[in-house]
Amino acid sequence: MSDKTTNGPDHDPAQDIHFWYTEYRFGHRAAFQMKVDRHVFSISGKLQRVDVFDTPQFGRVMTLDGLVMVTEKDEWMYHEMLVHVPMFAHPDPRRVLIVGGGDGGSLREALRHPRVEEAVLVEIDANVVETARAYLPFTASAMSDPRATVVIAEGGAYIRDHAAAFDVVIIDSTDPTKGAGGLLFTDEFYGNCRKALRPGGVMSAETEDALYDLPFLTMAAARIAKAFPVARLYWGMMSAYPSGTWTYTFASAQTDPLAGYREKDALAMRGQLRYYTPGIHRACFALPAFLERALAGR
Amino acid sequence: MSDKTTNGPDHDPAQDIHFWYTEYRFGHRAAFQMKVDRHVFSISGKLQRVDVFDTPQFGRVMTLDGLVMVTEKDEWMYHEMLVHVPMFAHPDPRRVLIVGGGDGGSLREALRHPRVEEAVLVEIDANVVETARAYLPFTASAMSDPRATVVIAEGGAYIRDHAAAFDVVIIDSTDPTKGAGGLLFTDEFYGNCRKALRPGGVMSAETEDALYDLPFLTMAAARIAKAFPVARLYWGMMSAYPSGTWTYTFASAQTDPLAGYREKDALAMRGQLRYYTPGIHRACFALPAFLERALAGR
Repeated sequence: MSDKTTNGPDHDPAQDIHFWYTEYRFGHRAAFQMKVDRHVFSISGKLQRVDVFDTPQFGRVMTLDGLVMVTEKDEWMYHEMLVHVPMFAHPDPRRVLIVGGGDGGSLREALRHPRVEEAVLVEIDANVVETARAYLPFTASAMSDPRATVVIAEGGAYIRDHAAAFDVVIIDSTDPTKGAGGLLFTDEFYGNCRKALRPGGVMSAETEDALYDLPFLTMAAARIAKAFPVARLYWGMMSAYPSGTWTYTFASAQTDPLAGYREKDALAMRGQLRYYTPGIHRACFALPAFLERALAGR
Repeated sequence: MSDKTTNGPDHDPAQDIHFWYTEYRFGHRAAFQMKVDRHVFSISGKLQRVDVFDTPQFGRVMTLDGLVMVTEKDEWMYHEMLVHVPMFAHPDPRRVLIVGGGDGGSLREALRHPRVEEAVLVEIDANVVETARAYLPFTASAMSDPRATVVIAEGGAYIRDHAAAFDVVIIDSTDPTKGAGGLLFTDEFYGNCRKALRPGGVMSAETEDALYDLPFLTMAAARIAKAFPVARLYWGMMSAYPSGTWTYTFASAQTDPLAGYREKDALAMRGQLRYYTPGIHRACFALPAFLERALAGR
């Protein structure tokens, strides 16, 4: 008896060979799966495991320790929101620091701004940078821009050593439950972020899923608000991350993200962008009621 | 050799009994899974199969033909956005029609408005209404409100027979690929929606996922724009639906969704709502660049 017979007359096992990536979420109570065409690359280093694979739905994907960091299909949503909100809120961003973000996507967005003279990317794991250079040209290509400097170092230590050095600091960290990423969510770290800013400087940080990790989100928001007089949560679509929307926090000593907003410059860049618009800049700070209440501790 | 030994000394098979619901998405190229505690109810009728189950992550869930319609964890995001945007855009909504929405969630939101004298729910499938009454009290409870009328009928035929009868029409349909749901996305249907409105009336319709079904979205938007002089897409979080965000379309003969907006009334209802706020009402019409371009046919 052939397999064909076993599975019924219409079933052809040869057409049914599929590999799937599974990311368990929310304490193993749900999962997100992507069909996989090809496992392109894998390296297990001291810090974490890095994988690259091709999928029919999300294009090329990079995961760190089995968590989706970048998909070709939607990485621009995350990178545009993390980077352009602080960049256009600053009157004249010349020196930019990106902490984490070893894939290069945030660097790519920062370097779209013609005012930028230097953008420093500080990534703790050389494997991420090398993997991105080799396999993720859509995010990593900006690393070869002459204004880009790539440093392999722990972001917390780097920022502690660079007081009053940057106009914009962008925290593009990994999941806070991971060892390396966790260091980037502490009181001390956010305090040093403020010290790393030049006068008038602004910061943005990814602050995770709005819906299923509210305890983390409110903790991070409270810590950022302790370090910065101005701290405002904003959000946007991010389909391959848990819950499908993602939050970011804008912070500064005095700059309001809307008051000094350079709308004319944003309009001039509009043709290059796929998510961010002036309308989105104004709208993204409007929070759903449940999130307003959570941040207010109610 | 016991199973324990087979699986290694730390593995206890008795602790590893799990049932999972899997929803394949995007042409079977990705999947969404929920761990299931208990399959509560199932009925296969002429129109579709209705299932209810309990999950540790999303609470009680109802699916139609294996597509998630309602989860206790996030149904309010969808229902609040579908209903309150048109309701607060109308100066005096007294008569409301909900087409589809047999779970009762849209009805519940419409009946929060004290101006409403009658809200008619027209659902094609009695099984959905009966299942919701029995198993989804969090959405179905509004069906016993004296202002509510529940009609089991095909929505397209019902609306054709009710010209100039409603201030607000809400299209709470299922997936357009399904037989019954597909009828609610045609030129003829949207034309009859306009005729069903009283002077000054407004409509909202769910118009699916923004990201992974753009051809459908742009088609529905074009059809609504053909029937209505005012047609504006808006969007919000909806974590258990594909992509994690969902779109809706506001339509009317002349009423702008922002110009006549009753902010004071919205503020008065604020304590009852978990997603919708006046800030969200204004912000939800700001579209990401890719969506602006898709709607403009670029």
